[in-house]
Amino acid sequence: MTGPAEVPATVEADAEADIDGDRLVRRLAELAAVGAAPGGGVTRLAYSPADVEGRTLVAGWLREAGLEVSVDAAGNLLGRLRGTAGLPGALGTGSHLDSVVAAGPLDGAYGVVAAVEVAAALARGGGLAHDLVVVGFSNEEGARGTPGMVGSLAVAGALAPEQLAAPDDEGVPLARRLRDVGGDPDRLADAVWAPGSPAGWIELHVEQGPVLHARDLRIGVVTAITGRVTLDVVVTGAANHAGTTPMDLRRDAAVAAAHVVLAVHDLAAPSAPGGPAVRVATTGVVRTEPGVRNVVAGSAVVGVDLRDESDARIDAALARLEARCAEIGASTGTQVRIVPGSRVAAVAMDPALAGCVARAADDLGLSRLDLPSGAGHDTQVLAAVTPVAMVFVPSVDGVSHAPQERTEPADLVAGARTLLRALHHADALLTPRDHPLA
Amino acid sequence: MTGPAEVPATVEADAEADIDGDRLVRRLAELAAVGAAPGGGVTRLAYSPADVEGRTLVAGWLREAGLEVSVDAAGNLLGRLRGTAGLPGALGTGSHLDSVVAAGPLDGAYGVVAAVEVAAALARGGGLAHDLVVVGFSNEEGARGTPGMVGSLAVAGALAPEQLAAPDDEGVPLARRLRDVGGDPDRLADAVWAPGSPAGWIELHVEQGPVLHARDLRIGVVTAITGRVTLDVVVTGAANHAGTTPMDLRRDAAVAAAHVVLAVHDLAAPSAPGGPAVRVATTGVVRTEPGVRNVVAGSAVVGVDLRDESDARIDAALARLEARCAEIGASTGTQVRIVPGSRVAAVAMDPALAGCVARAADDLGLSRLDLPSGAGHDTQVLAAVTPVAMVFVPSVDGVSHAPQERTEPADLVAGARTLLRALHHADALLTPRDHPLA
Repeated sequence: MTGPAEVPATVEADAEADIDGDRLVRRLAELAAVGAAPGGGVTRLAYSPADVEGRTLVAGWLREAGLEVSVDAAGNLLGRLRGTAGLPGALGTGSHLDSVVAAGPLDGAYGVVAAVEVAAALARGGGLAHDLVVVGFSNEEGARGTPGMVGSLAVAGALAPEQLAAPDDEGVPLARRLRDVGGDPDRLADAVWAPGSPAGWIELHVEQGPVLHARDLRIGVVTAITGRVTLDVVVTGAANHAGTTPMDLRRDAAVAAAHVVLAVHDLAAPSAPGGPAVRVATTGVVRTEPGVRNVVAGSAVVGVDLRDESDARIDAALARLEARCAEIGASTGTQVRIVPGSRVAAVAMDPALAGCVARAADDLGLSRLDLPSGAGHDTQVLAAVTPVAMVFVPSVDGVSHAPQERTEPADLVAGARTLLRALHHADALLTPRDHPLA
Repeated sequence: MTGPAEVPATVEADAEADIDGDRLVRRLAELAAVGAAPGGGVTRLAYSPADVEGRTLVAGWLREAGLEVSVDAAGNLLGRLRGTAGLPGALGTGSHLDSVVAAGPLDGAYGVVAAVEVAAALARGGGLAHDLVVVGFSNEEGARGTPGMVGSLAVAGALAPEQLAAPDDEGVPLARRLRDVGGDPDRLADAVWAPGSPAGWIELHVEQGPVLHARDLRIGVVTAITGRVTLDVVVTGAANHAGTTPMDLRRDAAVAAAHVVLAVHDLAAPSAPGGPAVRVATTGVVRTEPGVRNVVAGSAVVGVDLRDESDARIDAALARLEARCAEIGASTGTQVRIVPGSRVAAVAMDPALAGCVARAADDLGLSRLDLPSGAGHDTQVLAAVTPVAMVFVPSVDGVSHAPQERTEPADLVAGARTLLRALHHADALLTPRDHPLA
């Protein structure tokens, strides 16, 4: 985000109105300065003073663009641009304004600030047939041990009362946090988006992965947000003296754990028989006990994360892993148990809305790729109540959740322009055929 | 060590004098009560009040058996039984009296208490041609972060002045600790065994491994104390988002570490091409960083321990491991480095003295096995100054350095009788052929 935004020469001017690319890039830097962390990066934990300051800044930009600004009972920041047709449903776009600790400047913030610029351009150009609602969702990241996606869960009517009452890592219940950003936990039902009130939703986000950058592509058209299963594989062997215990009398938990790591990796290996079972399979945690060199490991744990856009494929992978764990236990003389963790279902994007994104990129001459999102987003929650789509722009080296998170200014601008154009296509798509504006 | 000692029916009565098996078992229990740990087991850290109390108890038993008792400048407890022939060199036997934290009752203690009973039997029977010296070595285990084998290093003239000056984990220099058990760091040279003064050394010890117990054998004739190399394999990959980073763009340190664990294991696998490279190969430490499920491991460490009775075989294994690490680094896109740790050379037992042990077991009708010691012992230090041998008795389930450490009473008695008879054979072997007693 250094220097002025360079709009690629291949991009045609939008027919209606263009976004202010320089201001987009400048405002992202301005927002990143709010909650700037001492060691680099930005920390705007949900409901913190920095979060409030960031939201206030964005609210001002929304007003400046001519939107009606409000905060709902769940603490979401909303800006509404009235449509020209008085249609019942609104098109929504935006993302979240909170961040993890020592985050980069773009995760969430980009989708909101770009939506502000898109709304400003639409306001200048006369608007859409539908109302446009720009949303800055609250607490997507799950600050202080909270479950995250609080704002989107609330509008989807899926925020449980016990979640409101549960104390966070600092002992403060979520209900009290909501008040810190102007929410009202007693009127949470008012925040729910009534059936039909949203006509569709498109979220613009940095990829947070390396695919677009590695392949030098400008736009990602998200096909699905992958389902995710976490689990621990717990190996129980026998701790023994590393010098005096012959190899054939060992029940070595480290060796069994190594086989488990490779078995998990194989679940996503292109070379697996019948192809990869799931898109990604990760063993971020490997740990032996007692964990000293002169003792054969008595136990070990392998922490596993599996993701795929098909829940059925995840189930098949789990079955394959279970069988492999039994084999590994038998061959190493250890007990290998799977301890389930969390499970989040896969969410498909709406094909028609995703098509609007693809068409927009094509209109603008931007190279594009269909890809799933391996990270979670508010959009996966909204899919329960409205058709959804997502637009990705490249993350340099795939870095995110770190101060080094970066996207080329030209890509930031191209993403915002794609969002603007996709909203135009969606506006047309979702306007009833018998409507005078259709 | 519950119930009275049952001497196996196959054991013939010793021609000279037999040991008092019941008293041996009783005294081991008596010594184990000194420093009994609150949570079970025994803690007699070197130079501690419990260590001093244990040494005082054993000194009394030595005196009762008719030995001349002294403490050398290194704090070793010595008991001398004069020989019948006035030969220049003495036969030595014993072990150490200190323990690790929450140890069992036998590691070290068994070798000393059995030596007391052997000396008592010899005293009753008229003694050996050689002087017999029973030794309770000080600080074999390396209390409070000290290097260990302090007493045997001192008699071998291998205790360095800087080791005396170095503060232990409690900030106390070894020199001051020596005084706590009656040693004198200023006269350490007096503790050195002059060339020729030891004629030979035999240490009796529990196996601390499962081999004899698993194969239902009574006596282990130690062939060598294995050499030992420790090292860390440090893997550097790239920490990335577990959801957004495609498998082909990962540099996964956990996967590389898993391959390293299996490569180390293969070094001792019977199925390895050309047979196992070393006797045992262990990866007690496996740890990934940052060590969370949703981040591909950016780095990992595998702590390795290799042991074999041949230093050349260890060198060959290291070369093989180095080559495998390079291959693993190349195939996983990670950097795989070997960081050397410690190295202790292998020590062969004296074949003639080991033969005395084997003959003794055969005399007594005790089944026996030649095997290396995978654990370290004072004997490996003494090998530099005198011919050495070791006798093992079975450890139930191979357990040691734990309160559950146990050896059947009958095996404890059989081991002591084997030591007695082996000393008779060694006494004859080492008496010059032209001596009137030869």
